[in-house]
Amino acid sequence: MHDEGGPAHQPGSAGEVLGLLRHGRVRTRTELAELTKQSRTTISQRLAVLVGAGLVREADRAASTGGRPSAAFAFDGAAHHVLAVDLGARHATYAVADLDGTVLATTTDPVRVADGPQVVIELVGRRLEELRAGLGLSGRAPRALGIGLPGPVDHTSGRPTSPPIMPGWDGCDVRRVLGERFGCPVFADNDANLLALGERALAYPDVDDLVYVKVATGIGAGIISGGRLLHGAAGAAGDLGHVHSPAAGDRMCRCGNRGCLEALAGGQAVAAALTAQGVPARSSADLTRLVQEGSLPTIQALRAAGRALGDVLSTCIALLNPRVLVLGGEMVAIGEPLLAGVRESVFSRALPLAGRDLRVAVARSGALGGVRGAAHLAIEGALAPAALAALEIPAGDEGRAAG
Amino acid sequence: MHDEGGPAHQPGSAGEVLGLLRHGRVRTRTELAELTKQSRTTISQRLAVLVGAGLVREADRAASTGGRPSAAFAFDGAAHHVLAVDLGARHATYAVADLDGTVLATTTDPVRVADGPQVVIELVGRRLEELRAGLGLSGRAPRALGIGLPGPVDHTSGRPTSPPIMPGWDGCDVRRVLGERFGCPVFADNDANLLALGERALAYPDVDDLVYVKVATGIGAGIISGGRLLHGAAGAAGDLGHVHSPAAGDRMCRCGNRGCLEALAGGQAVAAALTAQGVPARSSADLTRLVQEGSLPTIQALRAAGRALGDVLSTCIALLNPRVLVLGGEMVAIGEPLLAGVRESVFSRALPLAGRDLRVAVARSGALGGVRGAAHLAIEGALAPAALAALEIPAGDEGRAAG
Repeated sequence: MHDEGGPAHQPGSAGEVLGLLRHGRVRTRTELAELTKQSRTTISQRLAVLVGAGLVREADRAASTGGRPSAAFAFDGAAHHVLAVDLGARHATYAVADLDGTVLATTTDPVRVADGPQVVIELVGRRLEELRAGLGLSGRAPRALGIGLPGPVDHTSGRPTSPPIMPGWDGCDVRRVLGERFGCPVFADNDANLLALGERALAYPDVDDLVYVKVATGIGAGIISGGRLLHGAAGAAGDLGHVHSPAAGDRMCRCGNRGCLEALAGGQAVAAALTAQGVPARSSADLTRLVQEGSLPTIQALRAAGRALGDVLSTCIALLNPRVLVLGGEMVAIGEPLLAGVRESVFSRALPLAGRDLRVAVARSGALGGVRGAAHLAIEGALAPAALAALEIPAGDEGRAAG
Repeated sequence: MHDEGGPAHQPGSAGEVLGLLRHGRVRTRTELAELTKQSRTTISQRLAVLVGAGLVREADRAASTGGRPSAAFAFDGAAHHVLAVDLGARHATYAVADLDGTVLATTTDPVRVADGPQVVIELVGRRLEELRAGLGLSGRAPRALGIGLPGPVDHTSGRPTSPPIMPGWDGCDVRRVLGERFGCPVFADNDANLLALGERALAYPDVDDLVYVKVATGIGAGIISGGRLLHGAAGAAGDLGHVHSPAAGDRMCRCGNRGCLEALAGGQAVAAALTAQGVPARSSADLTRLVQEGSLPTIQALRAAGRALGDVLSTCIALLNPRVLVLGGEMVAIGEPLLAGVRESVFSRALPLAGRDLRVAVARSGALGGVRGAAHLAIEGALAPAALAALEIPAGDEGRAAG
């Protein structure tokens, strides 16, 4: 995950040629030579490598001058697949996608991440095999696997680091275990980070500064700044649930501290507080029903949760100056009261400059957002400069004989 | 400013060769060929270009085998100079530095940024000319100029964007005006961002996640995450002064809003509150004296300011997960009471993971921190891939004849 919008492919490399062909573009050798400022000979070499690797295919294109159609080339995203997993505290969603990001098959399971890595990874592996078998892909290796985990992930090793709701997972080498099973590179990241990547790919491809805030049982953010995902020193960037919220007073949080944002605005906390008030609620489905029935305590509790969340998000906005703030997760799906509270706080506190062009939006990527983000992570990893470098003609060949 | 720790130089480019020679390293052709995986012919071409541009010189080095010394090459940072300016609300500090970052001459002026760009930029230009003349450099063009401004700076254009304490500067093309005067590229950024760059270069060269918080009349942060400076959508990232602080209650802020962090913890706000309590204070020098005299109201006010600041910084830590949090600025220079308040809040709220390896430190770069950061910005700009690309042999030459 070093490469989302990150270091560009080396000019004239197979990676640059591939980048020009991705996203449905078809190009002739001449066009590619002009765009890369390389010779046609160099372009032919690069195309031969990419065609050999099965990433690019020849595609006929009618010549605009009416003459003989010139040979054109297209990215062959449909010829390969990646595997994607979105692992939550109590569910897992799986997908097989092609290299264009099209989801070919998906399924979801109730899974308890607290059952530990051995049980969960075995199940994940089995489900992915079933999906591949259903598509007739069992005989072919995936190009990569992407997985989102509900806790901090060390950016370098891909291992969970002291994840509070994932007992037994600390330091687990998820990448190695799944990599050995599927014979492909594995990329892992925090689930909120993948939601940010997925939402950006789907709805805001041109936005370089986007914060995605997931509000469910826990509260966490995926931060894209300057086109790159932030991870922080230990992979814990965006961990907003346990920020102090003055509105939470001294409410006990499941982390053991008091006054955390999650203790006021997290899904379980809202449901528990309503239950204690005599309005029984256990799940976000209950909260949705109560709002639809016009339950005033529920509406008030959600609006207060939104205000407390908005107060914290105001600091995030001042600190990060995003263009788009996306709200997602089951608490946001309940609807207006929480969103109204967030907007109330954010727009009363936002600075003129940081707030001027700020858009606060509800996530569009829906239930498949996380797994789409995981597929995106896998695709970008599979097509990153490091992965393509093995295909390249070694640099400096031109002068070696004379050296 | 796109390149601090950012996109690598193209492998085998003059930029990569230059990077291997910077920071005092001396290398032979053979070493450079091995390190870059290029042929000796290619390396000779790159070195010829860099020597021609005056950036690299031949340096003798005794052969370790006892034979004839082989020709070696060194970065010639001392052969060129950059100009640097740190413009504050009420001062300007100027420096001339060489390409190694060594400050050759520096001076400082009381300047009122509110006098507007015409007056201030004219003064800046004159002072820089005087410094250059004193060093006998008037006849030679600087390689670049770096300037820090006390407000948000648009990352793409280098122009101030709606800077609240810089009347008349909105949209001013600082880069063009100074670029025409000195005949060199100009790089501009927010002053807190440059303090972060300068502090990292001086004290934490291996730290990729560092937040520098400047506490003076205003409060602002420079954020380095994953090795890169964050700017946000409009250059306003890190603008912490007007975040809501519950401890500030309904105190009126100079921005027109109430309850801002700056209204409780900014230097002018602390001095004004003490004055209103019958402890006359106007400046940070007064506050320093009062602390030394053991003034209890002063110590209490500074500790409260530190706690309020620490509450906001706890959210920053959760959001960004930095390795090092640096505190600087004249309010920090006063000493213990404010720092004790910051530490009290930060370590009572920090999450186990985000707080585990967190270091809270006082800035080491001192009064020249800003101008050192500006010099760093200028040097990195002057030696960035884009600036060196003009020196390169065009890519693809090897195949052009056959194309």
